[in-house]
Amino acid sequence: MNNDLPSLTQSLHDFATARNWEQFHSPKNLASALSVEAAELLEHFQWLTEEQSRNLSAPKTAEVAAEAADVLLYLLQLCDKLNIDLLAAARSKLIVNGEKYPVDRAHGSSKKYTDL
Amino acid sequence: MNNDLPSLTQSLHDFATARNWEQFHSPKNLASALSVEAAELLEHFQWLTEEQSRNLSAPKTAEVAAEAADVLLYLLQLCDKLNIDLLAAARSKLIVNGEKYPVDRAHGSSKKYTDL
Amino acid sequence: MNNDLPSLTQSLHDFATARNWEQFHSPKNLASALSVEAAELLEHFQWLTEEQSRNLSAPKTAEVAAEAADVLLYLLQLCDKLNIDLLAAARSKLIVNGEKYPVDRAHGSSKKYTDL
Amino acid sequence: MNNDLPSLTQSLHDFATARNWEQFHSPKNLASALSVEAAELLEHFQWLTEEQSRNLSAPKTAEVAAEAADVLLYLLQLCDKLNIDLLAAARSKLIVNGEKYPVDRAHGSSKKYTDL
Repeated sequence: MNNDLPSLTQSLHDFATARNWEQFHSPKNLASALSVEAAELLEHFQWLTEEQSRNLSAPKTAEVAAEAADVLLYLLQLCDKLNIDLLAAARSKLIVNGEKYPVDRAHGSSKKYTDL
Repeated sequence: MNNDLPSLTQSLHDFATARNWEQFHSPKNLASALSVEAAELLEHFQWLTEEQSRNLSAPKTAEVAAEAADVLLYLLQLCDKLNIDLLAAARSKLIVNGEKYPVDRAHGSSKKYTDL
Repeated sequence: MNNDLPSLTQSLHDFATARNWEQFHSPKNLASALSVEAAELLEHFQWLTEEQSRNLSAPKTAEVAAEAADVLLYLLQLCDKLNIDLLAAARSKLIVNGEKYPVDRAHGSSKKYTDL
Repeated sequence: MNNDLPSLTQSLHDFATARNWEQFHSPKNLASALSVEAAELLEHFQWLTEEQSRNLSAPKTAEVAAEAADVLLYLLQLCDKLNIDLLAAARSKLIVNGEKYPVDRAHGSSKKYTDL
């Protein structure tokens, strides 16, 4: 099985088409679903200390992995609908972030670039 | 440039290390940041009709792409910290979803599998 | 029973104290929980059309009401911890919004004030 | 000025009507906006330690108060549209929570009631 993003996107497309779900998958709805899944992932961490979050048990990690998967699946479907090249966008964003947060000024700081 | 997820994850790792940001990047904090970015993406759609969301202008699509990139970047960093193989998790989830939502029962329905 | 917000806040305070939950209720954690509850509320609407969302069944409305309650309960606890007067803040925000969105320019537009 | 929730809800209603915004304010859209505002509130805390979140500066607290206000304003508008009595729902939820989390079993635990 080829595990890359285009192949995964195609699988998702086929999955939705087979179930006649395209009617529900407007970008607006997919963006909502993405946000809901991200919150379900966050729920696993809400009462943990940061230290505890760095030391999850194997079963808890598996639960988090399943939520992370949901986030990716909706993100890919959203990008598919909008013809967004997600990896290209991510690479571009990394370059932009490098300019917003120069190493010397951002070192050891969690401030937003507008406050650096 | 190799655009695949492991290479992107490595770039993110180097980016954070160069800025001494690892101290802020607990899984708990990354999960919060992921959720915040997903909401920023959703903000672009909140007052649009579904139809409008299917017909974004090019500039608006570029803004959405930048938010989608942010979501992916935090998702990859979170999975890196927790040693989660995101693509494997996504493939597994797709199989699980296929069992939860059999084609014949889920066809044309937006109900949750627990209500099918 | 007095149903106003200070009395509700006091009940929440007593509830958490009786269970020794104050240790978990940092503003950071309460803000996460608030966001998670808001997403649980959103989940009820994610696949509905706007029209369907205006015509919920009574049982669905009851489910949404329970989620709305959760949002309020965490919001009150967060404001309690930070000594924020929520109603005063809401009144102030309404005045600020009136200035950002003057009736003549904002009429019938869903644009953000920065784009009006 | 009467600061209670019904009066605030009425002000919000008048505000939206004067701007002809009712067309955008479907429950679906208001639920999205609520979730987006909750995430904006969370953003203020995402890189803070829990300890730092307990000791916000006055200006930062004012920013958080403004976001908390936004959350309440959308929550009230959503409940108004769905004829939900928010305070009654909150009181009911507190009773339900008391049953889900009995003092003796929930004491000092952050576990979900299903895991207690």
